[in-house]
Amino acid sequence: MARPLILVSNDDGITAPGIRTLVKVMKKIGDVVVVAPDSPQSGMGHAITIGETLRLDKSIAFESIEAWECSGTPADCVKLAKFHVLKNRRPDLVVSGINHGANSSISVLYSGTMSAAIEAAIEGLPAIGFSLCEFGHDADFSHTEEFIEQIVREALKKGIAPGVALNVNFPKRSEEPLKGIRICRQARAKWQEEFDERTDPHKRKYYWMTGSFVNFDKGEDTDEWALANNYVSVVPCQFDMTAHHAIVQMNNEWSLEPEINLNPEVKDN
Amino acid sequence: MARPLILVSNDDGITAPGIRTLVKVMKKIGDVVVVAPDSPQSGMGHAITIGETLRLDKSIAFESIEAWECSGTPADCVKLAKFHVLKNRRPDLVVSGINHGANSSISVLYSGTMSAAIEAAIEGLPAIGFSLCEFGHDADFSHTEEFIEQIVREALKKGIAPGVALNVNFPKRSEEPLKGIRICRQARAKWQEEFDERTDPHKRKYYWMTGSFVNFDKGEDTDEWALANNYVSVVPCQFDMTAHHAIVQMNNEWSLEPEINLNPEVKDN
Repeated sequence: MARPLILVSNDDGITAPGIRTLVKVMKKIGDVVVVAPDSPQSGMGHAITIGETLRLDKSIAFESIEAWECSGTPADCVKLAKFHVLKNRRPDLVVSGINHGANSSISVLYSGTMSAAIEAAIEGLPAIGFSLCEFGHDADFSHTEEFIEQIVREALKKGIAPGVALNVNFPKRSEEPLKGIRICRQARAKWQEEFDERTDPHKRKYYWMTGSFVNFDKGEDTDEWALANNYVSVVPCQFDMTAHHAIVQMNNEWSLEPEINLNPEVKDN
Repeated sequence: MARPLILVSNDDGITAPGIRTLVKVMKKIGDVVVVAPDSPQSGMGHAITIGETLRLDKSIAFESIEAWECSGTPADCVKLAKFHVLKNRRPDLVVSGINHGANSSISVLYSGTMSAAIEAAIEGLPAIGFSLCEFGHDADFSHTEEFIEQIVREALKKGIAPGVALNVNFPKRSEEPLKGIRICRQARAKWQEEFDERTDPHKRKYYWMTGSFVNFDKGEDTDEWALANNYVSVVPCQFDMTAHHAIVQMNNEWSLEPEINLNPEVKDN
């Protein structure tokens, strides 16, 4: 097999240490093209840029790697990579990360890292987002490399189901080596937000979002369980948000009026 | 029953005509509090503001209605509404919109309107996002009002399954009256992006995102089918992104090494 073509993006920006680690591992596996935001885009969710212009410029961030920096969101990066950078070169895999901070459980919704991967999945491309449960510029990614390589090689060999992107999270490096890799479901959890209210020098109030993570889920098949037990968590994610069980409930219990307005002339008489 | 408390937000900003229509209808049903972005936030997906400060100020946008404008995203608005504005007042319903433009099918992922509703669902609150398949400031929302009232009254009476937010889309107003309401699933579709490449006065290139909608789904139980046939579409949405079928596939086909690093000392000998 020819060397696979791997597109790399992230949400912490093209100069973040996490993407450097990911590019280093991907170079061992295939030909790499980087299209990443020119500034941090954490918490952007699946945002796209529709009311403003986008910039896309060649970047010298990586030696001997084709790299581009984009003024937009991670989802924008994947769209521009496909349309402008890769054109007829179809990537064999799209990877995003390594994010500085966890994207497990409910955080997948807020995650720019995963939005790049899910955008790729919408395009029918195999995709994986990688995140480390350690925030900060100087996070230690060294323990993730062998696992990333294993997961990526397996994804290239066995494939990922169409329309699915993998959400891979790594525990923070500790004394204990990682125990292995678990295929998981997304835990039922949420962020219990709090806001730090402050007053600016002009006497106007402003707020910083803070908050704490609350896990309601006792299951041992969740990403939160895996991470708490020093496993790498892998959650396959899809982008159909339909709550099929609620369709059944609504059809059974709701009384809508499908006839409404069908014959407005008659009704008005 | 006491008058229900209804929180209203949107993504087009607190001065958009769509939210005025929604507030007008909600005032007939309950007590209304508005917390909405102070500027347009279309396409923000489930973005939240974590690296910047937030402003939240009383607004005079609505006569005799408690209203607040927030510098953040729709998801930020719901979080700040809960934490700062409503505090111990728990809303009976959170509604978002009416969006100027469709949020059916895959657009639910990019939608700021739906991110407000889904944020509310994460908080365990019944929530509905409303969107009109007509873009532009002067869109005609008049045909949506009786349907919004019907759906909201039914949601308050029968409830919405926990963790579910409804994604309601209306066809653009036409000669034909709407045929009724259909409970649907999200159609398999995507945006086929294109980028309009231009050159600025300083000779640097920039891009506008454009694109066309492509529906791969022939099903008659989808939101796209309903809208194309002049029905109101209602898709119940949930925030568990897990692709359960892919867990099965990966457990069957992938060979990961759960033993890796279990005994690194031994392995190294």
